[in-house]
Amino acid sequence: MRNTALLLITLFIVGKVHAQSELTLKTRTYRQQNERKLMDEFLGLLAIPNVVYDTAGIQKTAAYIADMLKRRGIEPQLLEGRTKGVPPAVYGEVRVPGATKTIVFYAHYDGQPVNPNQWADGLKPFEPALYSDALDAGGQPVAMPKAGDPINPNWRLYGRSTSDDKAGVFTILAAYDALKNMNSKPTANLKFFFEGEEEAGSTHLNEILERHKEKLKSDLWIICDGPVHQTGRKQVLFGVRGDVNMELKVYASKRPLHSGHYGNWAPNPAMMLAKLLSSMKDDDGNVLIKGFYDDVTPLTDLEKQALARIPAVDEQLRQELGFTKAEGGGKTLADLLMRPSLNINGFSSANVGKLAANVIPISATAALDLRLVLGNDAQRQVQKVIDHVKAQGYYVTQAESITDEERARYPKIARIVAKSGYNAQRTPMNLPIAQTVAKAVQSTVKGDIVLQPSLGGSLPLYLFDQILKTPTITVPIANHDNNQHAENENLRIQNLWDGLETYVALMRL
Amino acid sequence: MRNTALLLITLFIVGKVHAQSELTLKTRTYRQQNERKLMDEFLGLLAIPNVVYDTAGIQKTAAYIADMLKRRGIEPQLLEGRTKGVPPAVYGEVRVPGATKTIVFYAHYDGQPVNPNQWADGLKPFEPALYSDALDAGGQPVAMPKAGDPINPNWRLYGRSTSDDKAGVFTILAAYDALKNMNSKPTANLKFFFEGEEEAGSTHLNEILERHKEKLKSDLWIICDGPVHQTGRKQVLFGVRGDVNMELKVYASKRPLHSGHYGNWAPNPAMMLAKLLSSMKDDDGNVLIKGFYDDVTPLTDLEKQALARIPAVDEQLRQELGFTKAEGGGKTLADLLMRPSLNINGFSSANVGKLAANVIPISATAALDLRLVLGNDAQRQVQKVIDHVKAQGYYVTQAESITDEERARYPKIARIVAKSGYNAQRTPMNLPIAQTVAKAVQSTVKGDIVLQPSLGGSLPLYLFDQILKTPTITVPIANHDNNQHAENENLRIQNLWDGLETYVALMRL
Repeated sequence: MRNTALLLITLFIVGKVHAQSELTLKTRTYRQQNERKLMDEFLGLLAIPNVVYDTAGIQKTAAYIADMLKRRGIEPQLLEGRTKGVPPAVYGEVRVPGATKTIVFYAHYDGQPVNPNQWADGLKPFEPALYSDALDAGGQPVAMPKAGDPINPNWRLYGRSTSDDKAGVFTILAAYDALKNMNSKPTANLKFFFEGEEEAGSTHLNEILERHKEKLKSDLWIICDGPVHQTGRKQVLFGVRGDVNMELKVYASKRPLHSGHYGNWAPNPAMMLAKLLSSMKDDDGNVLIKGFYDDVTPLTDLEKQALARIPAVDEQLRQELGFTKAEGGGKTLADLLMRPSLNINGFSSANVGKLAANVIPISATAALDLRLVLGNDAQRQVQKVIDHVKAQGYYVTQAESITDEERARYPKIARIVAKSGYNAQRTPMNLPIAQTVAKAVQSTVKGDIVLQPSLGGSLPLYLFDQILKTPTITVPIANHDNNQHAENENLRIQNLWDGLETYVALMRL
Repeated sequence: MRNTALLLITLFIVGKVHAQSELTLKTRTYRQQNERKLMDEFLGLLAIPNVVYDTAGIQKTAAYIADMLKRRGIEPQLLEGRTKGVPPAVYGEVRVPGATKTIVFYAHYDGQPVNPNQWADGLKPFEPALYSDALDAGGQPVAMPKAGDPINPNWRLYGRSTSDDKAGVFTILAAYDALKNMNSKPTANLKFFFEGEEEAGSTHLNEILERHKEKLKSDLWIICDGPVHQTGRKQVLFGVRGDVNMELKVYASKRPLHSGHYGNWAPNPAMMLAKLLSSMKDDDGNVLIKGFYDDVTPLTDLEKQALARIPAVDEQLRQELGFTKAEGGGKTLADLLMRPSLNINGFSSANVGKLAANVIPISATAALDLRLVLGNDAQRQVQKVIDHVKAQGYYVTQAESITDEERARYPKIARIVAKSGYNAQRTPMNLPIAQTVAKAVQSTVKGDIVLQPSLGGSLPLYLFDQILKTPTITVPIANHDNNQHAENENLRIQNLWDGLETYVALMRL
């Protein structure tokens, strides 16, 4: 095992110039001849609102993807679990005569919520728009070149899910199309599985997998989601962190109070929440919650070696992102992503800016997310936070409204509600099929690809492990500076074209 | 002096039953006969949007008040200072033959900003609506009784500025009307001065007072703003706290980051702001900023005595407001209002609730207000906060955008912008005219009135002192639970009627 492992690592991280495969060069020519056609289908997909909580938008998006399958001669199916009325997975399959392997290609078609007010002037989340560069590099709106003219690969396409993760859906289906149009064939049976509830925590994915266990039998799931390495290199990821979201709300007076008549007598929930959040981390960003770093499964030697070979990007990133001091007391980003994390996604109390008024607010709310590594359990991790809040003197409830009795009894009251999260997953790096995938991705580029034991982000891959007993490997395509999950989400056009070459190669494993 | 002082205090706070004046009883009868007419004029005033930053709304409100003056036979004037295009004061005067005193009656017609989403279902800030009780006491919408039928005095009128401070404008003008209709006459020359920029910090009031110094000559300004005592008793206030607002914004990455890929490496501005705010106060609510409690002018003996006689309301209020532990380490509300304060009006970073996303925000903002007592200087108090932020390792700027050089140089960056605030003011409680006012208010009720050295809230009364060398006394009328400055602002109907009796008495000093 150790030898295989070392082979895998040394195979790719040696700094030598690799040969790009014939297939890759052929795919490139095909893409150059069909850029506008490819782009039009993608733009159609992007124009459909797909916020995970928007049922109508989700249904329209699923229908568009079902049509994409049909256009490729694949019979679409909408897979549901036990629970009705939740976003279905859009599914299709291609049987290849004589194939000895079956591979499922996964992407998700739902997107994170959008707050249009936070997007840059002129940008609308569901009106995808081309820009000459990234906005913060001075990008300006550009018109789509006329059919036949090349699209500048450094341009950016702005819009919700341009990268996360309609790019994945589109690339998988475009790669299949490309193979067909190049008169080539997949070497394995292909199954396409497009989830519609990933950004809500894949709440019903377990039901779908359970119910369609037979249909979904395969040797491997390849997950198309997330960004390539910050150096711009392609990467193969053998695992993901888990994730669980929490909302923490602190209560004070029943009604908003005039800050002059009651200020510094009536408790201020914004100050209470500030103190509570402060107590959770030290100034270096280490989480102070008791036992927070317990339960962590140590990295294998192979994972440690892979980690050590990941190109250093911290300094470049700090410059790009415009800050001088990272959290973590000097540890590298790559190392920190192997730890469980606690992050404030946002907080709010009364108003700021033009709407600010001289009041003492009635409550203050923070949205938190906890990233989990192998060994962590989502509910156990949430409980550690709850216990910490209690240890700060809070009475903790899940109820929406606080009773007068509770108000009379407890000096500090917090509501904590955790969403259903999920745990981390890691596929052993020494599995033969893992090597095959890594080699296929390497065959598409001249430079080294990056092998990561785990994505910093999260996908519910533990479910494939638990329910289907099938390994997963993640092969992302988006640019790292894609503003995923936030306003001004974007995709660099070259990443779409590179992704196409990657996924064509992955269909000829 | 000391004797006069003691006389004043003992005159009113003795628990005896006082006689209500003939004038008060006559006013009551007049009001009972004219409730619907009075209410209609008030409702017309309330229906006009008056957010201080809404120029069109402010102009319409000023025009409506000018009409109210005209209907009373008073020639309205719009007073401006040097700066054009800012809300004018609406002014009018009544000369009384033989009068030896001149009194200016002040109220303000502008209102705090509104966020309609935060108002209770069915309530709109500028569609005043009657409710059978306070909302949190289970009040339900009720229709206006037909003309001639009494309006239940316990009902509430909901809408922006129902209490703060269109109630003041209306009551002053209704009191003048009442005197006329009762064939009575004011005993002093009356001047009416309705400010339109109070909720923005009275930024140009100084210019208006300077420019119209001659016109505004008087012996006393009576200020109709703020609430009566929490016991429901009428009160006379001899001063106000000053106030200055600040916005504090903390910056981190230039673009929002995926919390999985960068969480606990990239700095989180929400956590940074939480730590910064936490550092400003201890767990008892005492401000920890260096020198924050310096500069305070000690209370006079008379003020101390008045303070000691204010009815205790803390326990009642805590129950009513639904919390068990106040800030201040056991000090009473009345005592705490004599200290400078620091209050968080609100904070915000990225999103919570349905819009929450798994991001690391780019910035976090808090709105703060500092209340000032006699001796404090607004700019000096702001500087103490700035110095404190610097002492926490922050580079502080006022600029809207942060340069790459600043980002590269400073690990912690904050923007602090203070609005133009104003200082506190206190009229000596032993002035003869102060006694006269207190006696007039006392003449309208059977129980004791409350004498307060200072309102907890703020009004720019120091300007009258500085520019006009004229004393001010504040006589409020609104119910204490009026949600002033926040959503669901309201006025208890009985407070309007009581206020009318008070102001009729004040026009016959």
